[in-house]
Amino acid sequence: MIYFDNAATTAPYPEVLQTYQEVASKLMGNPSSLHDLGVQAKRLLEASRQQVASLLGKSAEEIFFTSGGTESDNWAIKGLAFEKAVYGKHLIVSAIEHPAVKESAKWLQAQGFDVDLAPVTKHGFVDLEALENLLRPDTILVSVMAVNNEIGAIQPIKAIAQLLENRPTIAFHVDAVQAIGKLPIADILPQRVDFASFSSHKFHGVRGVGFLYKKQGKKISPLLTGGGQEANLRSTTENLPGIAATAKALRLTLEQVDQPAQMQELRDYLLEELASFPDVTVFSGRENFAPNIVTFGLKGLRGEVLVHALEEEGIYVSTTSACSSKAGKPAGTLLAMGFPLDLAQTAVRVSFDGENQLSQVEAFVGAFKQIYQQTRKVRV
Amino acid sequence: MIYFDNAATTAPYPEVLQTYQEVASKLMGNPSSLHDLGVQAKRLLEASRQQVASLLGKSAEEIFFTSGGTESDNWAIKGLAFEKAVYGKHLIVSAIEHPAVKESAKWLQAQGFDVDLAPVTKHGFVDLEALENLLRPDTILVSVMAVNNEIGAIQPIKAIAQLLENRPTIAFHVDAVQAIGKLPIADILPQRVDFASFSSHKFHGVRGVGFLYKKQGKKISPLLTGGGQEANLRSTTENLPGIAATAKALRLTLEQVDQPAQMQELRDYLLEELASFPDVTVFSGRENFAPNIVTFGLKGLRGEVLVHALEEEGIYVSTTSACSSKAGKPAGTLLAMGFPLDLAQTAVRVSFDGENQLSQVEAFVGAFKQIYQQTRKVRV
Ligand SMILES: Cc1ncc(COP(=O)(O)O)c(C=O)c1O
Ligand SMILES: Cc1ncc(COP(=O)(O)O)c(C=O)c1O
Repeated sequence: MIYFDNAATTAPYPEVLQTYQEVASKLMGNPSSLHDLGVQAKRLLEASRQQVASLLGKSAEEIFFTSGGTESDNWAIKGLAFEKAVYGKHLIVSAIEHPAVKESAKWLQAQGFDVDLAPVTKHGFVDLEALENLLRPDTILVSVMAVNNEIGAIQPIKAIAQLLENRPTIAFHVDAVQAIGKLPIADILPQRVDFASFSSHKFHGVRGVGFLYKKQGKKISPLLTGGGQEANLRSTTENLPGIAATAKALRLTLEQVDQPAQMQELRDYLLEELASFPDVTVFSGRENFAPNIVTFGLKGLRGEVLVHALEEEGIYVSTTSACSSKAGKPAGTLLAMGFPLDLAQTAVRVSFDGENQLSQVEAFVGAFKQIYQQTRKVRV
Repeated sequence: MIYFDNAATTAPYPEVLQTYQEVASKLMGNPSSLHDLGVQAKRLLEASRQQVASLLGKSAEEIFFTSGGTESDNWAIKGLAFEKAVYGKHLIVSAIEHPAVKESAKWLQAQGFDVDLAPVTKHGFVDLEALENLLRPDTILVSVMAVNNEIGAIQPIKAIAQLLENRPTIAFHVDAVQAIGKLPIADILPQRVDFASFSSHKFHGVRGVGFLYKKQGKKISPLLTGGGQEANLRSTTENLPGIAATAKALRLTLEQVDQPAQMQELRDYLLEELASFPDVTVFSGRENFAPNIVTFGLKGLRGEVLVHALEEEGIYVSTTSACSSKAGKPAGTLLAMGFPLDLAQTAVRVSFDGENQLSQVEAFVGAFKQIYQQTRKVRV
């Protein structure tokens, strides 16, 4: 099996599952309990938070554990909107955000907020001038992802940070779910970023855990109200095994500093190979693209068909995003870039992790060559 | 160690952790993926949902997995409120709800909803007449828990169901987090109940997973918007290992049909013993009280002090709820019952699971007797 669907989800590291298991079986206390089982649990919880914070170069009070990237995004967007509604009701999110951001913004629209989608260039990058033109005195939030999940385009986070430098009343949220472990932290979290979302299972952690970075002093309304865990901003009995496992996964991921370069080598090899197929449209690029994602399409062949044909060869890829694939929705990013629907529908996404090998990419190219030949007739 | 803090959290069954581990290490697919790793994952997800549904006598389309009891409560309360706001903005929640419900209602109040707290009798049961008097034409939701987490009082869910029988525009939500595995399903989920919340770690499952029962046809606005998982009503990459583990924990719990009677035996023994200490106030009772909870206080001694004294003897109990214990907040339920603050602050909660033994309760009574004697001077 060749697993090239790491942008959908990654296999947890064995050490991560071991941590999960150990904590789940040995540390059963509720961190809120007064007795010493509680104290032990609390200690591990705070050590995990500290570890995540240190790895990001932030402080522990700025890290809030959640149930995943989606909750982190929902909380940032909706929590900020409700917190700041008295000051303004205008939000800007990019046109290529993950549904966790985009649908949150749409949901707010139905509650009376005003939402603008910042357009992207035909290459898939947020258009800075267009974004600047959308800013208004009542704008309370700008949300732009660090790495797009459908094509891997790295968004101009630093430039946006600069744009917002003298507009302190606008909160800046970055969906960093696809970026962590692929880009330098400094490119994801420049000082101007107020909130950032992360998801454990995208970096070999566990499903159902994520975290939100919230810059010290920034206010946000809770999304999950209740018992008052997570500094009274996000309630529920803490998923301690999942949290400890997440801290470990983040450490293991960030320690392997060579992985981005390794993935990039695979990516560049694949891009080069794909260039030799005349009917292939490559949607991803090299410059300012994540090292692990290559999205392309075979003209006249729907993405699903290619996914299944590759699967027959034991190769796992996806149409551009796992969550839209079932619904058969076309890739929102490609449409926002101006690609026509029929071309957008051809897209498949190949996404590597640090353990993939060049030999696997060669096998992929071999399999693809065959499919390319075999489908020649149906494609025209 | 004697663990009598099962209402705070329970130890996961070893089989449950085994399921978690197996699924996490072997089924890494994203249920939304088109390829066969996705298909396998999707199959297990739906089998887990079907199992939970069958165990509750409900259908699979009525079960939505969440990140815990808190999210289930928040979703039910806020989701219903936003969904029905055009029809009415009045909500009623009981005065003794868990903060996950109560704080959600308060949060809505700040957004312009109108909230009434239904009072309880001095014995800790929602006052039906008072509840009826609060109903208004614009009431959209009544939320009452099945078993109170602080004293174990079983709320009159069936009677409330009857009260609401001819008021179909009012949604009825039941927080069943403390009830499942302790009361017959029929007493928790009569047909009139529209929504009910559950949390895995309260029945020997895993932390960070819960589910919401939503009666077929009932509408609710999503709380976590995004990729469209969970029938487009609750998004995030599904925590498949946690979900499969939860289904298993629920089955194992409900299969042990003798457990409530066993716990009740321990409870009744403890209640009887406590009756012989003149300075003890017992807040829980027998009739219409959960079989696993005994809450009491030692006059003149703050609950925390008793918790720590028992801990010295290797016995783990808590002040009435884990989440309020750190904050040193007094037990909301006891205050709502009319107990004065100083008495409410003496409360400790003993909560059993099905594996606790009478010998442990005897040991508890022995330890308590000593503490009772030793603290005599400081208490007066
Ligand atoms: C960019 C981005 N944001 C958010 C998410 C949501 O993460 P999760 O599925 O963990 O909720 C994903 C993953 O699907 C993603 O790729
Ligand atoms: C009655 C009740 N509702 C909701 C909750 C919240 O559950 P969780 O901590 O899993 O979010 C709890 C547990 O603390 C509870 O006892």
